[in-house]
Amino acid sequence: MEGNKIIFIGAGNLATNLAKAFYDQHIKIVQIYSRTEDSAKTLAEVVNADYTTIPEEIKKDADLYIVALKDDVLVELMPRIIAGKEHALMAHTSGSLPLSIWPDSVKRKGVFYPLQTFSKQRKVDFRNIHLFIESNSFEDNALLERLAACISNNVCELSSEKRRQLHLAAVFACNFTNHMYALAEKLLKQYDLPFNYLLPLIEETEKKVHLLSPREAQTGPAVRYDENIINKHLDLLSDEPEMREIYQLISKSIHKL
Amino acid sequence: MEGNKIIFIGAGNLATNLAKAFYDQHIKIVQIYSRTEDSAKTLAEVVNADYTTIPEEIKKDADLYIVALKDDVLVELMPRIIAGKEHALMAHTSGSLPLSIWPDSVKRKGVFYPLQTFSKQRKVDFRNIHLFIESNSFEDNALLERLAACISNNVCELSSEKRRQLHLAAVFACNFTNHMYALAEKLLKQYDLPFNYLLPLIEETEKKVHLLSPREAQTGPAVRYDENIINKHLDLLSDEPEMREIYQLISKSIHKL
Repeated sequence: MEGNKIIFIGAGNLATNLAKAFYDQHIKIVQIYSRTEDSAKTLAEVVNADYTTIPEEIKKDADLYIVALKDDVLVELMPRIIAGKEHALMAHTSGSLPLSIWPDSVKRKGVFYPLQTFSKQRKVDFRNIHLFIESNSFEDNALLERLAACISNNVCELSSEKRRQLHLAAVFACNFTNHMYALAEKLLKQYDLPFNYLLPLIEETEKKVHLLSPREAQTGPAVRYDENIINKHLDLLSDEPEMREIYQLISKSIHKL
Repeated sequence: MEGNKIIFIGAGNLATNLAKAFYDQHIKIVQIYSRTEDSAKTLAEVVNADYTTIPEEIKKDADLYIVALKDDVLVELMPRIIAGKEHALMAHTSGSLPLSIWPDSVKRKGVFYPLQTFSKQRKVDFRNIHLFIESNSFEDNALLERLAACISNNVCELSSEKRRQLHLAAVFACNFTNHMYALAEKLLKQYDLPFNYLLPLIEETEKKVHLLSPREAQTGPAVRYDENIINKHLDLLSDEPEMREIYQLISKSIHKL
């Protein structure tokens, strides 16, 4: 990506991981913007860039702006972000926002969406991550694809509609899955049992879906609707009405599927 | 485990994986019982044992009977399984049944519970599996512990009450997690998108909880309660009332936690 000046707008979990992945591939990042000085400075230091916390001080001569802000923050800051950058490609990183979120004054609209869960505490390997791109021109598709291919082996064009659908499925597969871990952890704390008892089970559950469809891979009391066990579990949850409700609803759904 | 004659009662997912793990460690299994001739025969051939489909033909001279039946089948077949085996240690493999499920006529009661999800299509490595044992005597605890240690590095005594609590947490961490994968798969089929797009995300979600507590690891629209995204997702699920309900309930639960 010789000759392309890239600026990151945002320094959260996604921006941090993505900027580091670029940096590791010797792709120069000129500047980091974040509302939080601490985040801006921390990331800027790691990737050897300038930083600012003022939208008006975002440099205007970059070729590509990667906008990795929370959806509502992006919408709120939009006018201040795009001002004076009419020549440049603006690419957001959201699974749920369409390409058309960019107003007409932005001539070169783009999306650069890595399908992954990011935390600052854990560096992810981008090679296997699916990276979905979209833009409103053949040239910018090519540019985003070339950039994406520097860090990932799985780059794919995807429309805004398909990306939104994929994002919904990802919420089930990632956030809701992680919440099942969190509820299990909560129970084990109550019972004074260590969470690490579950780790090999969690690992195997994940590994199985590389080989079997999740429907085929299902085991446990709900799939055979073993009412005896289910009722005993509901008894155990008698002080946890919310977890009881989740238990019942998911068990029924497993049995139905 | 020289000199101990072991018989397996059951030839399902758990029995198949456990018997193979014993066989790999050169622990002799004398006989397999299953109601299904096909299952009994298949497993017997793999572990080089005899087999029967008639409870009365289960040999009576074994030292240890590993009873890996579904809970309701175990209860139903109990009198025919234990008849004439008063001298032997009977160990069931259930997370939810207490040690006291064995009637008084069984003098040597045991539990041998590997905390894992088993499918016949996938061989698991027992080394890292947590194996929980229980019995009503010091000697039989030692026997079960010695046997368990032949296949697993994580052997632990656990009471019936604690095992039941652990099993409930495991249902969340494994079965409910797998159902989230299954619902994601169902959505992607509807949308004509491949399930393998999600695999790196599913993998990373799992890996994160080895490093971060699931509560800390959570990301996505529900944790920041982004109503804009949540409402769009609920719109997408307008033809799926059950998934809508699951989506709403879990999102609220994530936000609350």
